[in-house]
Amino acid sequence: MRDLKLSRAFTLMESGPVVLVTTNDGGSDNIMTISWTMVVAFTPLFAITTGAWNHSFAALRRTKECVIAVPAVDLLDKVVGIGTCSGADTDKFAKFRLTAVPGKVVKAPLIKECVANIECRVVDIVRKHNIVVLEGLAAYVAQARKEKRTIHAVGDGTFIVDGRKFDRRKMMAARIPSGV
Amino acid sequence: MRDLKLSRAFTLMESGPVVLVTTNDGGSDNIMTISWTMVVAFTPLFAITTGAWNHSFAALRRTKECVIAVPAVDLLDKVVGIGTCSGADTDKFAKFRLTAVPGKVVKAPLIKECVANIECRVVDIVRKHNIVVLEGLAAYVAQARKEKRTIHAVGDGTFIVDGRKFDRRKMMAARIPSGV
Repeated sequence: MRDLKLSRAFTLMESGPVVLVTTNDGGSDNIMTISWTMVVAFTPLFAITTGAWNHSFAALRRTKECVIAVPAVDLLDKVVGIGTCSGADTDKFAKFRLTAVPGKVVKAPLIKECVANIECRVVDIVRKHNIVVLEGLAAYVAQARKEKRTIHAVGDGTFIVDGRKFDRRKMMAARIPSGV
Repeated sequence: MRDLKLSRAFTLMESGPVVLVTTNDGGSDNIMTISWTMVVAFTPLFAITTGAWNHSFAALRRTKECVIAVPAVDLLDKVVGIGTCSGADTDKFAKFRLTAVPGKVVKAPLIKECVANIECRVVDIVRKHNIVVLEGLAAYVAQARKEKRTIHAVGDGTFIVDGRKFDRRKMMAARIPSGV
């Protein structure tokens, strides 16, 4: 995995891919599948919607750390599987044969098999709306990985994979932040 | 446009498409392009990140109403154009030849050319993070429209179009809310 400039890290999330969020509770690692995410600032800041219904939430709240790992479409069945079992009774790294890689800043692990990873700290929890605001501290991309198409959950059990790309950089030049 | 059950409206947004958000300030309609959005609850509730840097924000804050309109890929250049000019000096419906259609609940208009529209009211503004929480009040889909692939902004001036779909409804059956 190669370092990605933090000023570009928001581009890993802006398209709205379903992501895996890892935590470490001091003893063991856990993973949750999260589709309800958005970019909140270029710094970068991200918002995710989660709460006590996710086993990971307790570790997220207590450690104030996590990693956002972005899977590609070849991990779809693992992503769905991770989202339909609980870390309360499952070692998800073992069950889904994913490789936990130590990060540089936080104790939550990166996921080696993912397209990108972002080490994050919790900067705020907006309890009223179950919104957790995360600051990206370090970002990595798996440059050599061939399959890079991400997955977008529809919410009804179907998923959309990245299709054709369009370049509108000229039209948008004045609006793209420097460093991107 | 055909009514969509409100219990399904979150599925219009969960995949993370770039959207057009319309407002009406009492006199004129405006449109902003928003890519930083997420679902917050099935009821449905949506969060969007916006603030005073968008001309529409004043109307959004004052009227506490808007419409989220979901464009398909054939509207890409309008979506980019809308995002790179300001309602302060531009009638965007006229400039981009879009048709404002009255909604049933709010004064902000639906956009006829879009794949889907959701009438919304502002339920909260989390000032600290520029997050506006919206409740969907009515939703519509353009059933007859042929091009339904939505657009996902990457944030660097490039855009990804919906590609192949995967069905994992059986795997997820226990986790899909009723009514979806």
